[in-house]
Amino acid sequence: MSDVQPILIAGTWRPADAEGTFEPKNPATKEPTGEVYPVSTLKDVEEAIEAAAVAAEQIAEMGDEIVASFLERFAERIEARADELVAMANAESGLPASPRLAGIELPRTTDQLRQAATAARNRSWTMPNIDTGSNIRSLYGALGGGVAVFGPNNFPFAFNSVAGGDFAAAIAAGNPVIGKGNSSHPGTTRLLAEEALGAAEDTGMPKATVQLIYRTNHEVGARLVSHPKIGATGYTGSRGAGLVLKEAADKAGKPIYMELSSINPVVILPGALVERGEELAGEFTTSCLMGTGQFCTNPGVILMLKGANTDTFVQATSAQFSEAPVGTMLTEAVENGMERSVGTLKGAGAEVLAGGERGGGKGFSFQNTLLKVDGATFLKDPEALQEEAFGNESLLIIADDMDQAVEVTRHFEGNLTGCIYSDSKGEDEPHYRRIEPVLRKKVGRLLNDKMPTGVAVVPSMNHGGPYPATGHPGFTAVGLPSSISRFAMLECYDNVREHRLPAELRDQNPSGALWRLIDQQWSQGDVG
Amino acid sequence: MSDVQPILIAGTWRPADAEGTFEPKNPATKEPTGEVYPVSTLKDVEEAIEAAAVAAEQIAEMGDEIVASFLERFAERIEARADELVAMANAESGLPASPRLAGIELPRTTDQLRQAATAARNRSWTMPNIDTGSNIRSLYGALGGGVAVFGPNNFPFAFNSVAGGDFAAAIAAGNPVIGKGNSSHPGTTRLLAEEALGAAEDTGMPKATVQLIYRTNHEVGARLVSHPKIGATGYTGSRGAGLVLKEAADKAGKPIYMELSSINPVVILPGALVERGEELAGEFTTSCLMGTGQFCTNPGVILMLKGANTDTFVQATSAQFSEAPVGTMLTEAVENGMERSVGTLKGAGAEVLAGGERGGGKGFSFQNTLLKVDGATFLKDPEALQEEAFGNESLLIIADDMDQAVEVTRHFEGNLTGCIYSDSKGEDEPHYRRIEPVLRKKVGRLLNDKMPTGVAVVPSMNHGGPYPATGHPGFTAVGLPSSISRFAMLECYDNVREHRLPAELRDQNPSGALWRLIDQQWSQGDVG
Repeated sequence: MSDVQPILIAGTWRPADAEGTFEPKNPATKEPTGEVYPVSTLKDVEEAIEAAAVAAEQIAEMGDEIVASFLERFAERIEARADELVAMANAESGLPASPRLAGIELPRTTDQLRQAATAARNRSWTMPNIDTGSNIRSLYGALGGGVAVFGPNNFPFAFNSVAGGDFAAAIAAGNPVIGKGNSSHPGTTRLLAEEALGAAEDTGMPKATVQLIYRTNHEVGARLVSHPKIGATGYTGSRGAGLVLKEAADKAGKPIYMELSSINPVVILPGALVERGEELAGEFTTSCLMGTGQFCTNPGVILMLKGANTDTFVQATSAQFSEAPVGTMLTEAVENGMERSVGTLKGAGAEVLAGGERGGGKGFSFQNTLLKVDGATFLKDPEALQEEAFGNESLLIIADDMDQAVEVTRHFEGNLTGCIYSDSKGEDEPHYRRIEPVLRKKVGRLLNDKMPTGVAVVPSMNHGGPYPATGHPGFTAVGLPSSISRFAMLECYDNVREHRLPAELRDQNPSGALWRLIDQQWSQGDVG
Repeated sequence: MSDVQPILIAGTWRPADAEGTFEPKNPATKEPTGEVYPVSTLKDVEEAIEAAAVAAEQIAEMGDEIVASFLERFAERIEARADELVAMANAESGLPASPRLAGIELPRTTDQLRQAATAARNRSWTMPNIDTGSNIRSLYGALGGGVAVFGPNNFPFAFNSVAGGDFAAAIAAGNPVIGKGNSSHPGTTRLLAEEALGAAEDTGMPKATVQLIYRTNHEVGARLVSHPKIGATGYTGSRGAGLVLKEAADKAGKPIYMELSSINPVVILPGALVERGEELAGEFTTSCLMGTGQFCTNPGVILMLKGANTDTFVQATSAQFSEAPVGTMLTEAVENGMERSVGTLKGAGAEVLAGGERGGGKGFSFQNTLLKVDGATFLKDPEALQEEAFGNESLLIIADDMDQAVEVTRHFEGNLTGCIYSDSKGEDEPHYRRIEPVLRKKVGRLLNDKMPTGVAVVPSMNHGGPYPATGHPGFTAVGLPSSISRFAMLECYDNVREHRLPAELRDQNPSGALWRLIDQQWSQGDVG
């Protein structure tokens, strides 16, 4: 198997202990990319976990400045190899080289790494909390073992298991990462891991700071996330595969943060349609079809009240969906998933307004698909009618009136986002006040007058939400330093001698700039 | 079944839809208390969940001041009925009426309620986070459904399901509570629930703010924690029963915070024994036998290096354990559990230095029990030798040298606390530096020169720790406002019109005192 790509374990690219291989395809041509990748056995996984546990102890001794330097150096090395990375990601994902990969996603990725470096250096994520009366002091710290990161198919850079948001957050807290590369872009992941290893060598970080395997069977994956020496897991991907891992991790009491699925309901209130129905039709179509609809925050459900303006909106969007070019999908599995999900929606009573069939684009593709259902039909089978069709598809739900719209909203599952469009004159305000409290508890991020597809990488972002959008409603996967808390444990020091405390908890503020909660007041000063 | 106590559902004390009954015993006399309590079916649980979901929406509309008033009024009502509560808790638990129940635990309970009221009023727990550039704003908010609280046997007031720490934290965030009373003190819980309902009536809170059932079978309990309309669960109790609930909640993607078991290792380094071995023997014995050892933070393992001073310590503590009076245990099940666990420890090679048999005290009791094992034997079966014997028992582990002590520490499971005693001259410092990084990642709270039994109710406290001490290493069950975050979801607002934002996120600081993170700087000022 000399032509099989090696895996990265404990600083060495070496042949996998493989139980099989797989060959990714270029989705635009449906042809193999020409590279062959291994399916790892438990042996590879256990070696990675042991090496990560040792690296975790080493990082703890090295200090934060090296972690920050590593992240910054990694960002530089990605930029230096940008052309090759973009070409590889384009070939593997079908996503446009420009602007998407080169102009948007790659800069976002290096920005995330640099924000993580800032957090590692300024220690803001540790949230020091000091009570002087009892001399009890606490902060967040690394988990003491590696973090497994399972990257999704739709962001080959920004959510990559060895360079993306979960990676950056885990590393910033001082945890080594064991990347499980997504099978749709192993070459991109390999190039990124090469640069990560180079950055570790450049900066003196342990070589096992970043390790990479490409694929395992379900049983080995379950062992990875539940191993006694693993710290936690970050997973972004399909609900089915994710729930297998969740069960294993939960049973072992290991934290696992998951982004599983989301259909991101958008409520358009009547006044907004009166004011700017035509404009909203275009806004919706653009948001839904962007990236061939393969965003976690793709607007998959639009909830409206029946009426003439709604009819006009439905006609306009149907026409736009039919006329818009059909994009390439990430993989054959995504195309198959669309067929299956659209079938489920149709079977539960949804009517096809546009598309609904395979093909129409270059390579793996599915027609831009718009479906419609009335509120009563939705309420008969809300589970089936919330099946996520990952791709360029959306379902319009037309409610008879606000009562029914609120009832539909009560049946929404947990989602990453929820949007409400309303008019500017206040006509929709009573409707808003009824529907917002219900929608609020179903979503992580609530938007006004804006489609959900943009996800700003800022500290107040919540890219999370109630199950089944994610596995826990209290955490975000995007936004630094917030996202770091997923990969940290709460460490309390009771009566510990001052010279033995972490610098963040000593009387003197370590930087003069670190915010600390001292006797319940935030302060940049010293204790006492 | 007219003599069976009623349950509290939706503001009404009504007969349970019961599938059986149980009669608590006075542990000091082993006689029934004379009260009969129902085992609820799914019907009771579902009614409670529906009522809580409605109450959650009502509380959201009412505002924070009512929540704070309710908590304060409840504290007052508990104080007004203190004598009756103490008498009932004493009869049901065997814990001393004074000082323990009347002088320590009841004041702690009302203090917690008042701290929760302060947090509900000052909103500190919402942690507002505002980015002005992107106009994205987030905070923590209520879960939108009831919180189920399962209270433990060992704190009839301070961890009671309808008055204790989890209750206070859940209510402070605006969540109604469905209490599952501990079967060992249902009368105490009933009296507390009467006062909680009274406080709700006094202050205008929804009557379903507090509901109470006493017992269910495992299947119904599993349904409670995994119901689509439940927000989250707090559980403190045995690992076995807890894991049944955890599996159900995890599968449904519902947060469940658990305090399951902890043996709280204490490391005594050689220099500390030289300096004050005799004193430490007394300190350890007192801590271990306090409350008949029935504390979550009871020191269940002492790790020392072999040597003459250790021998002296072993002899002294053996004698003290034998001579100390034997306390009453909370229940027959606790006595049985001691017998079972001590048997497991002996079977794995532990030698009995003192006690080891049932009885010796008034009512349900077990002799003060001290066991010993050498490091090599411990390392042969670390799992069995970490079996928690909940009660007046501890295991001394005598390691050959520091290498072995570190290896023993590597095999410790997750615990709530870990202590290290060292000398005052710095002789133990090299040992400390070796063992602390290993112990640190195994425990929630690390102490120096102090036994773990005291748990201060301060914001920086961590009464939590890695699994199996709890279900998640990032949260604390004690310490306000910190503990509230368990019963909250992260709510992000993206481009939401200012008048629609929660007060905490509007430009103007709602109180002028609320700390908010604005563009990554903590501030009590307004935005802009």
